[in-house]
Amino acid sequence: MEYRRLGKSGLQISALSFGSWVTFHGQVDDSAGDRLMGLAYDNGINFFDNAEVYALGESEKMMGRVLKNKNWDRTSIIVSSKAFFGWRGANNKPNQTGLSRKHLMEACHEALQRMQLDYLDLYYCHRPDRNVPIEEVVWTMTNLIQQGKILYWGTSEWTAAEIMEAHMVARQYNLIAPVVEQPEYNLFRREKLELEYLPVFSSVGLGTTIFSPLASGILTGKYNNGVPEGSRLSLEGYEWLRNRNLLEANIAKVVKLEKVAKELGTSLATFAVAWTIRNPNVSSTILGATKETQLTETLKAIDVYQQLTPEIMKEIDAIMENAPMAIRH
Amino acid sequence: MEYRRLGKSGLQISALSFGSWVTFHGQVDDSAGDRLMGLAYDNGINFFDNAEVYALGESEKMMGRVLKNKNWDRTSIIVSSKAFFGWRGANNKPNQTGLSRKHLMEACHEALQRMQLDYLDLYYCHRPDRNVPIEEVVWTMTNLIQQGKILYWGTSEWTAAEIMEAHMVARQYNLIAPVVEQPEYNLFRREKLELEYLPVFSSVGLGTTIFSPLASGILTGKYNNGVPEGSRLSLEGYEWLRNRNLLEANIAKVVKLEKVAKELGTSLATFAVAWTIRNPNVSSTILGATKETQLTETLKAIDVYQQLTPEIMKEIDAIMENAPMAIRH
Amino acid sequence: MEYRRLGKSGLQISALSFGSWVTFHGQVDDSAGDRLMGLAYDNGINFFDNAEVYALGESEKMMGRVLKNKNWDRTSIIVSSKAFFGWRGANNKPNQTGLSRKHLMEACHEALQRMQLDYLDLYYCHRPDRNVPIEEVVWTMTNLIQQGKILYWGTSEWTAAEIMEAHMVARQYNLIAPVVEQPEYNLFRREKLELEYLPVFSSVGLGTTIFSPLASGILTGKYNNGVPEGSRLSLEGYEWLRNRNLLEANIAKVVKLEKVAKELGTSLATFAVAWTIRNPNVSSTILGATKETQLTETLKAIDVYQQLTPEIMKEIDAIMENAPMAIRH
Amino acid sequence: MEYRRLGKSGLQISALSFGSWVTFHGQVDDSAGDRLMGLAYDNGINFFDNAEVYALGESEKMMGRVLKNKNWDRTSIIVSSKAFFGWRGANNKPNQTGLSRKHLMEACHEALQRMQLDYLDLYYCHRPDRNVPIEEVVWTMTNLIQQGKILYWGTSEWTAAEIMEAHMVARQYNLIAPVVEQPEYNLFRREKLELEYLPVFSSVGLGTTIFSPLASGILTGKYNNGVPEGSRLSLEGYEWLRNRNLLEANIAKVVKLEKVAKELGTSLATFAVAWTIRNPNVSSTILGATKETQLTETLKAIDVYQQLTPEIMKEIDAIMENAPMAIRH
Repeated sequence: MEYRRLGKSGLQISALSFGSWVTFHGQVDDSAGDRLMGLAYDNGINFFDNAEVYALGESEKMMGRVLKNKNWDRTSIIVSSKAFFGWRGANNKPNQTGLSRKHLMEACHEALQRMQLDYLDLYYCHRPDRNVPIEEVVWTMTNLIQQGKILYWGTSEWTAAEIMEAHMVARQYNLIAPVVEQPEYNLFRREKLELEYLPVFSSVGLGTTIFSPLASGILTGKYNNGVPEGSRLSLEGYEWLRNRNLLEANIAKVVKLEKVAKELGTSLATFAVAWTIRNPNVSSTILGATKETQLTETLKAIDVYQQLTPEIMKEIDAIMENAPMAIRH
Repeated sequence: MEYRRLGKSGLQISALSFGSWVTFHGQVDDSAGDRLMGLAYDNGINFFDNAEVYALGESEKMMGRVLKNKNWDRTSIIVSSKAFFGWRGANNKPNQTGLSRKHLMEACHEALQRMQLDYLDLYYCHRPDRNVPIEEVVWTMTNLIQQGKILYWGTSEWTAAEIMEAHMVARQYNLIAPVVEQPEYNLFRREKLELEYLPVFSSVGLGTTIFSPLASGILTGKYNNGVPEGSRLSLEGYEWLRNRNLLEANIAKVVKLEKVAKELGTSLATFAVAWTIRNPNVSSTILGATKETQLTETLKAIDVYQQLTPEIMKEIDAIMENAPMAIRH
Repeated sequence: MEYRRLGKSGLQISALSFGSWVTFHGQVDDSAGDRLMGLAYDNGINFFDNAEVYALGESEKMMGRVLKNKNWDRTSIIVSSKAFFGWRGANNKPNQTGLSRKHLMEACHEALQRMQLDYLDLYYCHRPDRNVPIEEVVWTMTNLIQQGKILYWGTSEWTAAEIMEAHMVARQYNLIAPVVEQPEYNLFRREKLELEYLPVFSSVGLGTTIFSPLASGILTGKYNNGVPEGSRLSLEGYEWLRNRNLLEANIAKVVKLEKVAKELGTSLATFAVAWTIRNPNVSSTILGATKETQLTETLKAIDVYQQLTPEIMKEIDAIMENAPMAIRH
Repeated sequence: MEYRRLGKSGLQISALSFGSWVTFHGQVDDSAGDRLMGLAYDNGINFFDNAEVYALGESEKMMGRVLKNKNWDRTSIIVSSKAFFGWRGANNKPNQTGLSRKHLMEACHEALQRMQLDYLDLYYCHRPDRNVPIEEVVWTMTNLIQQGKILYWGTSEWTAAEIMEAHMVARQYNLIAPVVEQPEYNLFRREKLELEYLPVFSSVGLGTTIFSPLASGILTGKYNNGVPEGSRLSLEGYEWLRNRNLLEANIAKVVKLEKVAKELGTSLATFAVAWTIRNPNVSSTILGATKETQLTETLKAIDVYQQLTPEIMKEIDAIMENAPMAIRH
């Protein structure tokens, strides 16, 4: 495994990491979760990602049970949670969601309880909340760090300007600024990481833990012939993914990408994950899996990504036609 | 129920809320308190207001017992207390009242004990204290937040200049500023909210939780024919209300208001409460009640207030003759 | 009893207070201590002064036992301790004295244990320590306040410039400044309070709790005919007091003062104590006593001090010939 | 024993101190450790130095057991640990070493557990970590102080510029700056202390606890005739010392130094240790020992160092030919 510094912070994170989103509790039981996390850990993954909203708290509980059972050295792993959407779903009441001091404090306490942990390594604002001043967020995160309940904090799907405002407020009031952002990043969604965040990377520094490297599965190539029963895109609640991604034009691009992957002697999924960590501004790519074979396959990206020469990257850009800027090749 | 942001803070508060002042312990027992708070909660009220001085601590104890019995999700409610007058009444010794660090700290600990809570959501300075530097107050409130004992703090019946001084001190020393003020506000007392606080609302932001929306009962119309036995104004200790409010001229205005209410097909009490939340600078109007029917009646204000058209608001101003500025209609 | 604001802080302190120095453990046992503190409390005294060095920790233990036995409301009293000299006397090792963060932290913990308290209201630096940067002192005191172990902090026998440096450091680093100084003050020692501290009183504010109002007993008049057996000045270890105070010239002045006291119909001791609280910059005068009759006598100063007209004050100045400035009469 | 102020801090440290490096657990068992620490304490040593990496945590555990057994007054001793290298040796995983907030926090908790202590007096960054912003280090150390887990913090083998950056960051964000640096210092390694740190000593102040006063044993003279079996230099893992120090030229210098020592009537080891504490910028020289006789010998340096007249110092400089500047003699 390769470890990368999380932005300008001192935390070392594995370039590939494990996320429980959409799998834990929903598609994976404790036994499978135990095997998957064990496989991840044995392959050097040290970051295990979670959020209060994943399976409405059940994902955190399940990861907590697995961690307790594994009994790994607490210092060897990075565990996260995220506050914003609440864990009560349709039953969320006011202040049981969002980024107010009330919800951030209460959500952190509840996440620690569900995960049976004394502290979280990373605590994310799962989305921006325009109804809460960023000053209140930075103050609360700093208080949580001072109280020893979290070590670092970050954001997910915030704009570059919002992240910079958090830094501005931290400078003004002598508070602790965020160190990480969790955006979606894959061959279809490149703008945030390759364009919008550039000034943040170079000025105050920003680590990124990116999700959906396979664009909800489309980059495995498994939808090239339509959506099979039982795949994530056929599950209830994921219609929005289908609408956005399953355009015929995209499938056509995926077919071309698969050829490039085969020429490299690798699978499309491995290839697509490798492409994400080829970007030096990606600190860690979060992998999801329901089966060990899936995880084994995407873990190979660590070995594959350095084969992505500038020439291959140009070839990919030519296929995708969505490179925001010619910044790296 | 409608929820409003408490000033520029991230807290969402119900536009109508429940206060225990003058009722709990004095006129209402645990059983009635349980029914009233249950009715409030079931109607979407999330803010339950209290203070150390209400029934000299007994109001907090009673609310604490009800909350324990109800066993509502702690994250679904906002609970407050206020320090200043002490809870020992005539037996108050020096430092058992006021806003010194000693009383604020000790009063907070005592309130948490009486209410059987780990933290208060809102903690108010019940009055300004000219014998304590505002710097000491802002420092102490910030320390209480850092210690996790309170989440937000505010003031009650402070002048706009005093609130701004608290913000100035917070900026100077990197401390946490107040987010809420609790003034009296009703058709007879409009100056603070409609004039004095305007620059505070627009500059640093200020939530308001207002009390006495019915002007101690006069706006229910029940004194239109004199003060009946058993009403609050006839209770011992409330003579001051009689002197201030029960002027004949005011009763005459109330009679006119009742006509407007009837034209809208609502009761005078509902109408008067609706008028308060018609003001967008009111975050929440605190309702008191001794009987469920009273609460049911005033809760209707949520549906009524949007019927208060600019024309009706002008009509009301013409009756009351006390609009400080033509700011909203 | 009269209560005064402690400098510009919000704390209200009784103009007369009770100190255990040189009496507790040494000359007074638990039973007498209980009676004396009870008498003080019943007369409205709310400040009980102590220090780690008094009877080498035994004074704090004894006061702690009396407080536990009395079971007064904790919020009704102000309890202090002071760090600097250590409590091990000749056995003090390095870092068991002074104002380093190590000693201040450890001494505070030890004092709380000896006194069986959760927090001290006032915590003093018993002397300046030129081997510790004032920055380290202000940081440590602020940390102790943030940790809830003390409420306010102060100094004893610091120079005005040192107190101002503490304020300067607090301003620079956003820390909490001291609010009180404990100097010696009596008819023979007037310079600090009447001259040196004047700019501190008027700029940043400074409360004072003064000790030795009777100049180690000389102002009771009991040494007018020599030092009797059993008095404090004849006790071993107090020779330094004899050398400084028992000059014949001073005794002559005391004789003259006694006449003035008699003309006012009061005892010399009461008169001398009254003279100290006549100074509005004195927040509280600390009274020591081994017998209840002594305390009863000096407590009368509350009633006497307002009889000290400008004319009488001038008469006193004429006798003492040591008024630093004509500032008050 | 002589006590010195640790830089500009308020801590008083014995000019000679006791280090467990390379001896505890490796060459010394609990019984010998108990005797050695007892001898040190009885001779006035108050500083006991440790680090997570010494014997991979076993040195801290052993010192903890000895301290528990000795039951010395906690306030009479200064105990340190250092974070950076981790205690898992070859098994260290990412974030189990370095100066990130994660490792500093976790390493501190683990050191306290191993040593069975509530707080450390000194906590060092064992080396600089260029993968962690100094801002993160200063923030974390300040948080640890505020949480009461450490009292002071320092560095080891940092450059003067890095130490100054820590002070700069502390000034910028109102945090607590380091007070001590632990460099190697002996007759062969003089540059850091005698040249590089000079501006730090004179501007912000810096205490030093220096290690290897005998240059890994060469300054005892025992290698003058080659490396005997069983000495430290013959132990596995210390080859680097041999390569660096055992140059023939250095041995020749040692022979000359021994003559000077004999003229003073002292042993070479005592003489070499004395030379280190002759430098007023040395706060404390850390002594290691496997036998009580060794410790007894080096403890004599306290009496010897004041015999090192300017003339003798010049003689030494002439032998060593490595004085960076003529600053002291």
